[in-house]
Amino acid sequence: MKLTRSPLAPESFPELPHVKGMQVATHSLGMYKTSRDDLMVVRFPHGASCGGAFTRSLTRSCDIDWCREALEASEGKAQALIVNAGNSNAFTFEKGIAKNNATLDSYEQLSGAPRHECYLGATGVVGVPVTPGLIADVLPDVWERLSSDFDWLTLASSFMTTDTFPKGAGRTVKVGGKTISVAGIAKGSGMIAPNMATMLAYIFTDAPLTPQNCQWLTNQHTNASFNNITVDGDTSTSDTVQLFATGGVELTEDELDAGFDDISAAIGEVFMDLAHQIVRDGEGASKFIEIEVKGALNDGSAKTIACSIANSPLVKTALAASDANWGRIVMAVGKSLEPVNRDHMTIHIGDVLVAESGQRAASYDEAEATRAVSGQEIRIVVDVAVGGSSATVWTCDLTHGYVEINGAYRT
Amino acid sequence: MKLTRSPLAPESFPELPHVKGMQVATHSLGMYKTSRDDLMVVRFPHGASCGGAFTRSLTRSCDIDWCREALEASEGKAQALIVNAGNSNAFTFEKGIAKNNATLDSYEQLSGAPRHECYLGATGVVGVPVTPGLIADVLPDVWERLSSDFDWLTLASSFMTTDTFPKGAGRTVKVGGKTISVAGIAKGSGMIAPNMATMLAYIFTDAPLTPQNCQWLTNQHTNASFNNITVDGDTSTSDTVQLFATGGVELTEDELDAGFDDISAAIGEVFMDLAHQIVRDGEGASKFIEIEVKGALNDGSAKTIACSIANSPLVKTALAASDANWGRIVMAVGKSLEPVNRDHMTIHIGDVLVAESGQRAASYDEAEATRAVSGQEIRIVVDVAVGGSSATVWTCDLTHGYVEINGAYRT
Repeated sequence: MKLTRSPLAPESFPELPHVKGMQVATHSLGMYKTSRDDLMVVRFPHGASCGGAFTRSLTRSCDIDWCREALEASEGKAQALIVNAGNSNAFTFEKGIAKNNATLDSYEQLSGAPRHECYLGATGVVGVPVTPGLIADVLPDVWERLSSDFDWLTLASSFMTTDTFPKGAGRTVKVGGKTISVAGIAKGSGMIAPNMATMLAYIFTDAPLTPQNCQWLTNQHTNASFNNITVDGDTSTSDTVQLFATGGVELTEDELDAGFDDISAAIGEVFMDLAHQIVRDGEGASKFIEIEVKGALNDGSAKTIACSIANSPLVKTALAASDANWGRIVMAVGKSLEPVNRDHMTIHIGDVLVAESGQRAASYDEAEATRAVSGQEIRIVVDVAVGGSSATVWTCDLTHGYVEINGAYRT
Repeated sequence: MKLTRSPLAPESFPELPHVKGMQVATHSLGMYKTSRDDLMVVRFPHGASCGGAFTRSLTRSCDIDWCREALEASEGKAQALIVNAGNSNAFTFEKGIAKNNATLDSYEQLSGAPRHECYLGATGVVGVPVTPGLIADVLPDVWERLSSDFDWLTLASSFMTTDTFPKGAGRTVKVGGKTISVAGIAKGSGMIAPNMATMLAYIFTDAPLTPQNCQWLTNQHTNASFNNITVDGDTSTSDTVQLFATGGVELTEDELDAGFDDISAAIGEVFMDLAHQIVRDGEGASKFIEIEVKGALNDGSAKTIACSIANSPLVKTALAASDANWGRIVMAVGKSLEPVNRDHMTIHIGDVLVAESGQRAASYDEAEATRAVSGQEIRIVVDVAVGGSSATVWTCDLTHGYVEINGAYRT
């Protein structure tokens, strides 16, 4: 089926800064009916540090198994990243392992580097067998085309599946008079739920970070961003966030220390920007919804309640129809089974107070409430009145488009 | 909006046996635009025993609060049941309590019986304030019309909301030469998820059961039926199952002992029949889906995995489109985070083996798999290969109809 660009998409792909120490090539394996690219190869010719966060799914893909093994064995070192779309290599067992081994054999021959410094990613349909040579057969040719003169849009487009727009985000930050670049690309629009945010996201920087830095930054910023978005509550078998730091810009230890917080902030902004773009491309999404739960007993409880609202099909269909049916928010709070004080709860939609003290607000006005859910951006704040903790999650509405796309994904 | 009868509905409302010891009247409070009934009053002139199972939601309705209190205070005795549709009396706080108090005051005056033997039920929109006299004002008139000469179809129709067909089930069983009747009615089609099965269901029998019998039977059969169905994973604020035993048929203690298992089996069948009818009326449902998970570590784990599959929007939209996208079943198993052996899992759809040993079955044939998901009744069996426990849940698919109905519920 033809997917039309999400109404919540940014106007255009952003300008992303050049990250020193990266070479890139893309290719069409022919996984799709068109001649679109579906393979990306990234090489770090002088090496890189990296961190990773991966799906907790117990039916995770062969590529996830490999990345975890590689990250541990290499102690966070990276020389390459190879990602394909069109087949997620999940539930493919020996055939999936054989494909990865063939890819890594080819990689070792071409690079002369140890296989454990090459990371693999895959996204697409689950359970369709792969041939061993899927990537290995073309890797030598692609390797020849690796170039530091690349454009991010091509790269971001090469691993889209049901995405309706390519996702990129970038920041620069001055440290010790030098410009540090951070650029990230991501794909994902369905099977999006914590933990984790069920997509592939790769963030690159030329800051000279250690593997420990990278892992800490990955955990920190994933928790704040990708782990707080949800489209449908479904968790993919392939979720990946990886941060690569090439060290293409040299900094003294003092400079890095002094600039670390700024670099971290820039990286965090890129994580968050990409996470929001994934929600904005939620399958069939017509509204971007921010849900804040406050007054909760602890952070975990706040997040559980927020996700219960965000994943409720009844809440999401009401919002799709611009129906201020906030009783369904009450329902979703209650079904979370987290501690709440029903009779002191308050609910705001936008700046409209719809409920307080366990009932409809005295000032409630249906027209005002309807206006608050009629825009493309909706903010819901629920105070559950039992404590001081809060959490914010982002989601989208549930529309005919979701049903349409997901009934037709393989056709 | 006009709802069309579910394609999965039974051909007609069944013939239900007469239960001795019940008087019934229905009425239109005017909660709907039509003159349909939206209030039912049931009286047990000689009293009844009862049991109840109620939503665990922490934002439960005032009626649920009352039923729990009444069941405890009366020690499982009942003289009446009053249920309205059109307003669930949830998140109405003092106004909801005032309505219930007025109803119960009126009930006490009319019956001369203690208020704690009168149970209240309500279903409909959440958070809309009620007037105190909503039911109290009309109760004297309705009370005059109470009659043991009633028809079940009228009763079952009086508390429907988005239901597209009234739901009833009945059985009779011979005990000591006498005929014991069991008849049940239910409503519910959205906000259906364990625990519990998020609807109102009232089951009546003229067997002379004790309150203890009734509570035990309610728990037992609710767990096997209503707690194993799900439509959308949303749990209502009003879920109720109540079993009333009038003792209208007299049995000696020996006769009851000898017949108890048969009576229990008949009651269990009525619970299960009603539970399945609720799924068959799932909002927008076009397919009835049975999901069995076996080979699990324990019963709880089996049920968690089965519900993870049953509630996955991606699985449900694929089935709606008759797309044998069983990779999404793999995804849903994995996201449950329950123990599974990915590389030894097998999946059947109908009698078609689609996956085994952690990958697509060698015998896999897309046309056969597609045929297996093309009917109105689909059975999925997943063996997760780690233990000996199993669970079965029932659900329906996710269609445009669901989005349509739930975007338009209040309009």
